[in-house]
Amino acid sequence: MTPGTGRLAVVGLGPGNDHQRTPEASQRLAAATDLIGYEPYLNMVQPVLAHQTRHCFDNREEAQRARLALELAAEGRDVVVVSSGDPGIFAMATAVIEELHQVTGTALGAVAVTIIAGVTAASAAAAVLGAPLGHDFCIISLSDVLKPWDVVERRLAAVAGADFVIALYNPISKHRPWQLDSGMNIIRQHRMGTTPVALARAVGRAAETVRIVTLSAFDSAEVDMSTLVIVGSSTTRQFVDAAGRSWMYTPRTYPAN
Amino acid sequence: MTPGTGRLAVVGLGPGNDHQRTPEASQRLAAATDLIGYEPYLNMVQPVLAHQTRHCFDNREEAQRARLALELAAEGRDVVVVSSGDPGIFAMATAVIEELHQVTGTALGAVAVTIIAGVTAASAAAAVLGAPLGHDFCIISLSDVLKPWDVVERRLAAVAGADFVIALYNPISKHRPWQLDSGMNIIRQHRMGTTPVALARAVGRAAETVRIVTLSAFDSAEVDMSTLVIVGSSTTRQFVDAAGRSWMYTPRTYPAN
Repeated sequence: MTPGTGRLAVVGLGPGNDHQRTPEASQRLAAATDLIGYEPYLNMVQPVLAHQTRHCFDNREEAQRARLALELAAEGRDVVVVSSGDPGIFAMATAVIEELHQVTGTALGAVAVTIIAGVTAASAAAAVLGAPLGHDFCIISLSDVLKPWDVVERRLAAVAGADFVIALYNPISKHRPWQLDSGMNIIRQHRMGTTPVALARAVGRAAETVRIVTLSAFDSAEVDMSTLVIVGSSTTRQFVDAAGRSWMYTPRTYPAN
Repeated sequence: MTPGTGRLAVVGLGPGNDHQRTPEASQRLAAATDLIGYEPYLNMVQPVLAHQTRHCFDNREEAQRARLALELAAEGRDVVVVSSGDPGIFAMATAVIEELHQVTGTALGAVAVTIIAGVTAASAAAAVLGAPLGHDFCIISLSDVLKPWDVVERRLAAVAGADFVIALYNPISKHRPWQLDSGMNIIRQHRMGTTPVALARAVGRAAETVRIVTLSAFDSAEVDMSTLVIVGSSTTRQFVDAAGRSWMYTPRTYPAN
């Protein structure tokens, strides 16, 4: 390709398996000359095609990934930035659009950018659990790398008090060991101990495990980086079906006071 | 099929076009003997296959749809309940799991149920806009058909006060004409008039239109049943790129006070 004919897509892989990846995402991945991403996500894109260059990055280097993507596209390459899940939800779309804003008025600012939506982790986990997100809910990242922890605390208190279902992204990591317990303690001030809490780990991948516990029995030691935590509202219910499968759902009807 | 071999899937179509529908969803739709759904959603499933029966329902008859689906599956049919977007987010997964809970211990309770996630309207709209959901956000239905309006008011005040991005599902209808203005007025008490607000209509379909306005210029007359409204947080930004395209995004970094 020649300069001016390049393009850049930020593609959501969905949960990680081929059958939950949209055709739009698969087509763009197959056409790309350059794939850019965090290494574990790039490894979810198989087979490796002979005409493609793969640019592997560390998890934290989002701005560098975005900049390289714009530079390669400006040189005429067909570039895909790879995200897991949906790129718009705590993933690479933001970093790329932020960078595009920064370079407004320069040659990089003329790159044609497309965001390709995917099935986000909350949707994939909810499907395995039943329908925990069937009523008003919120998605909060527990990472305080790019936002102050007191903002997380204030937000958790607000949505716990207003009885939202709460999906926690990035619940824990080696560098953020105490935030999950601290956040759950805020939620415990507003919810009964019997509230269902789901731990959905690596949903859609070979290592998938899903457990439904109660808020009082919740143990952060069972949670890792690949786990999505969903805390039910006051109306969220749990039951076991005839085959022994556990379901969690939030009814469509909310009671009047 | 014979009794005991039937099955039931609740399938998310995604935004409505084939290239944003997951292969898992397409395979299950093609295999089904019976499709059940709200008529406009059933019409998104093409072509009509000779071996399939289509059961069209009115928008409000969710419990009846769920019951029929369980009954047909218990008779040995391969049943798909069709949802737009993601079935787990204000769609049919909840109605089906609620019904499954109700029939625990009966023959209908033994039906094998699967929820198949899709790309939800918020993800599809966010992709067209840039990355408005790149930080903590919530999804609220403005419908007060199944929940009291004061619950909606309390929730909007909580998330507006805690500076979440807010995606409004079911913003308006013929039977609910005043709720959107009332809800936006609550948000206006907590956000600057310059806050970006997106009106994303029929995203992924032929009639798609997307506009970014400000909170003070927002006019509910521009919103219909097919529109998703996304209200930015205090950090959400808007810009126009070299090609004249408007973008809206919420940066990854949240400032300390």
